[in-house]
Amino acid sequence: MIKRLCEKIDEKGSPIVVGLDPSLKFIPKNILTKCFAEYGETLEGAAEAFGRFNRVIIDSVCDLVPAVKPQIAMYEQLGIPGLIAFQKTVDYAHEKGLVVIGDIKRGDIGNTARFYAESHIGSVSVGSENYSPFDEDFATVNPYLGTDSVQPFIDVCKENGKGIFVLVKTSNKSSGDFQDKLIDGKPLYYHVASKVNEWGKQCIDGVYSDVGAVVGATYPEVGRELRKVMPNAFILVPGYGAQGGKGEDLVPFFNNDGKGAIINSSRGIIAAYKREGYEKFSEENFGDAARAAVLEMKIDIDNALDKALN
Amino acid sequence: MIKRLCEKIDEKGSPIVVGLDPSLKFIPKNILTKCFAEYGETLEGAAEAFGRFNRVIIDSVCDLVPAVKPQIAMYEQLGIPGLIAFQKTVDYAHEKGLVVIGDIKRGDIGNTARFYAESHIGSVSVGSENYSPFDEDFATVNPYLGTDSVQPFIDVCKENGKGIFVLVKTSNKSSGDFQDKLIDGKPLYYHVASKVNEWGKQCIDGVYSDVGAVVGATYPEVGRELRKVMPNAFILVPGYGAQGGKGEDLVPFFNNDGKGAIINSSRGIIAAYKREGYEKFSEENFGDAARAAVLEMKIDIDNALDKALN
Repeated sequence: MIKRLCEKIDEKGSPIVVGLDPSLKFIPKNILTKCFAEYGETLEGAAEAFGRFNRVIIDSVCDLVPAVKPQIAMYEQLGIPGLIAFQKTVDYAHEKGLVVIGDIKRGDIGNTARFYAESHIGSVSVGSENYSPFDEDFATVNPYLGTDSVQPFIDVCKENGKGIFVLVKTSNKSSGDFQDKLIDGKPLYYHVASKVNEWGKQCIDGVYSDVGAVVGATYPEVGRELRKVMPNAFILVPGYGAQGGKGEDLVPFFNNDGKGAIINSSRGIIAAYKREGYEKFSEENFGDAARAAVLEMKIDIDNALDKALN
Repeated sequence: MIKRLCEKIDEKGSPIVVGLDPSLKFIPKNILTKCFAEYGETLEGAAEAFGRFNRVIIDSVCDLVPAVKPQIAMYEQLGIPGLIAFQKTVDYAHEKGLVVIGDIKRGDIGNTARFYAESHIGSVSVGSENYSPFDEDFATVNPYLGTDSVQPFIDVCKENGKGIFVLVKTSNKSSGDFQDKLIDGKPLYYHVASKVNEWGKQCIDGVYSDVGAVVGATYPEVGRELRKVMPNAFILVPGYGAQGGKGEDLVPFFNNDGKGAIINSSRGIIAAYKREGYEKFSEENFGDAARAAVLEMKIDIDNALDKALN
């Protein structure tokens, strides 16, 4: 699957993934009012609003970006109707030719990890039938439980041609509480990155492995270090935009050929119509605002890479 | 909520939580056949089988144990129908007066963590309405992302009178990959336990805090050490039975008054009819076998505690 993501990045000419993290706070009133009129102020109504919002965003950016990353917590918050909206969002993104990274951050032991993997990036047998319940292309995985919690995801990747991104260094402020603690002179995230490199050797497809890593844009120096520790790992970089990361911060996550990383922005794109400098977009035109934000982000990254690599 | 769990443990006289982790492999044929006849070999059929299986287990053990712990991965494996079965299982356990520990092992940053917490142990606002989508009493939480990923769960606990168990040292073989690495001379799990103790001070209710910890039965020496590091944390102990833990291994997880821990067994109880020594129970009598397994486990723990504490 990493090969497909690389091809899609080349095709669209942008290493950008749009985080589909809807929130009732920034869904335009016209959508909310219609959904609440149809379904009441219910979980179903809110989930329907998420779905309609996402479809407009996907329509607005699908020719510009290779991938989307729905954050399942946003949908799980709305219970069953929310998870149905998650599933429909994955399907709609696939219809539009996008790679889907399920930001699920699951992690559990042995067989239990395998069940998560089958649900999200594999298939489940029921009697003589097979089903792919959520059917993302990649899933994010939490490594705290160790190798036997990650290997089942890798096995399912190999069986189904899918991929994972393992959390190494996250973009939040407290990520250092444990991830930065020194073990034999190196931070925990370094040790996790070494394991990611080792795990990834099982499924290298071209230059990169189907086992990638998550490293936050808010820690560019860490990105520089880990780019070397995991030469075959594609890096998924959250934290650009709303969380503070800028174009120039992203350079260290890429290899010298300008490949090897994909940058996520969520609120900065899907709620762009609320941003400073985007006043010309009305709430109803949130899709156009999202498109403009992707184009602005693309220029920011292109300029930073051009400056650094040429 | 920890106070309620303690009261329930006293009332039932057993610190045992039954892991409701159904799998198609051990659902009796009579249930499977009926469900597949009604729903076909579909996710709905499998989920219906999980639900019927769980109801029999709950009916068979609800007077003996204070709590059940459904592992959401088993249900998520079956997609939306599975998650509906999870929700119905939580509701049915509540009807029978049981405390429900949602074994969800979620973890994410800031607001995103809050969405998971609201979904599972809190409530969500939609317009002027409030909903509690999954409505467990406790949730398990992965700490790898640090304080600002755990605090939103604690906030939701405080607002809703609920609790969490934070993964500290898990029962699996590879748990040492990262959890055992030495930081300033102490393993990572020790540092996580220190944080659990610190986090828990915000919500002590009686002797114990609504912030508990998960420490695997397979590491009794670690249990002994961490019991002291987290004096106010209730310890949820997985790994008894099928994973290898025995009654005598459990003593270190308890305080000197025989309180402060709750022991989970999943397959060892719900699939007891397949165990050596349980041949007298036919597949159809899996509920009676589960009941017998709980009683056997209760005696094993009682004997171990009697021997150690008296």
